[in-house]
Amino acid sequence: MSSEVVRPAAKARKAHGERKRRSILEAAVDIASAEGLEGLTIGRLASEMGMSKSGLFAHFGSKEDLQLATVEEARNVFIREVIRPAFLAEQGLARLWKLCDIWLVYVRGGVFRGGCFFAAAAAEFDSRPGPVRDRIAEIMKEWLATLRRAVVEAQEAGQLDRKVDPTQLAFEFNALELGANWAFQLYGDRKAFARARDAILERLCRHATKSGATSLPVQKGKPK
Amino acid sequence: MSSEVVRPAAKARKAHGERKRRSILEAAVDIASAEGLEGLTIGRLASEMGMSKSGLFAHFGSKEDLQLATVEEARNVFIREVIRPAFLAEQGLARLWKLCDIWLVYVRGGVFRGGCFFAAAAAEFDSRPGPVRDRIAEIMKEWLATLRRAVVEAQEAGQLDRKVDPTQLAFEFNALELGANWAFQLYGDRKAFARARDAILERLCRHATKSGATSLPVQKGKPK
Repeated sequence: MSSEVVRPAAKARKAHGERKRRSILEAAVDIASAEGLEGLTIGRLASEMGMSKSGLFAHFGSKEDLQLATVEEARNVFIREVIRPAFLAEQGLARLWKLCDIWLVYVRGGVFRGGCFFAAAAAEFDSRPGPVRDRIAEIMKEWLATLRRAVVEAQEAGQLDRKVDPTQLAFEFNALELGANWAFQLYGDRKAFARARDAILERLCRHATKSGATSLPVQKGKPK
Repeated sequence: MSSEVVRPAAKARKAHGERKRRSILEAAVDIASAEGLEGLTIGRLASEMGMSKSGLFAHFGSKEDLQLATVEEARNVFIREVIRPAFLAEQGLARLWKLCDIWLVYVRGGVFRGGCFFAAAAAEFDSRPGPVRDRIAEIMKEWLATLRRAVVEAQEAGQLDRKVDPTQLAFEFNALELGANWAFQLYGDRKAFARARDAILERLCRHATKSGATSLPVQKGKPK
């Protein structure tokens, strides 16, 4: 097939275009986390990147295209920085704990200027119907489903009390993480991450079976 | 003193002006809860109220004046709808529970189009330094301090375990409420309010002393 015969110059051009697009989107996620997706105009981004507006239009035809591509980029970063490292842990309670803990470490590390991209984007777009809002809602549902599935797997592995409602626990853990992000963004209160961590760990320890407890770190202030 | 001798016409004019200002601010809080405080331009508000822009300028000299007045109005509504009714309950565990429960009922009732005004405003302004951000942060601190004080009072009344950290509990309850507001705004998920309610009530019941437990409603699914 002709598509397999790619000329080296064309291949290099394509790779360069993809690197450029990726670096634009990284800047876009950072801007949007702090100033909102609505603040992310092609003009604003062009000035941040030292590019012409027409150069940016070659990558993104409209503001909505740019917003949607930025949301996908933020999802890629989240998968790379939180989901994949957590999935290195064994399926069950260890993985559930890692999903929560790595998320907190990641946001605490200030990877984006405005904290958690999706917390900011959800608050901004929840009252603005359209494809951007729908995509943000879908991605946050994936996250809640990932948390919930990890709870179910921990129960199936006999590590977590089966009486615990997985949807309820996923709701609570997500809320505690949003609450920590909120306190950090508003007050620069880094202790909020430790508060969310303590609250999540306390629940997991309380509901863990004897065999499950060995997958969790020792709680602060509790006898070893 | 001359200021005590107010002519009836001037008095009526002043009262009319205050009513008008109040009705403008009520519309402003509603718009800002859904479209953000940055979306709250004098032009947008004038069109919503069927007023001229110059008429609105008579009430608010600048966009920032309008934003600050809108934040104060939202605070007044919150005090009227949540704090005062909760303070009718007896000091201690009953009041702590009412603060949480009335907040959830209030946001679930859809008092503003965009849900909790302060959750939206905090997410929007947390990365925008200035007087609007500072005032939002101050008001949210009042709320956290009110929750915290209610925990301490419940402990002093011998109704709640003194080993509970009041700041931690206030953080968790606020996070659960923000989480419910978030799920409702993004998914129209009214069940989220019941989830937050269950989580808060479960914690209070677990930490209540025998005398404190009588101040709390019976937990769903638990024997009476």
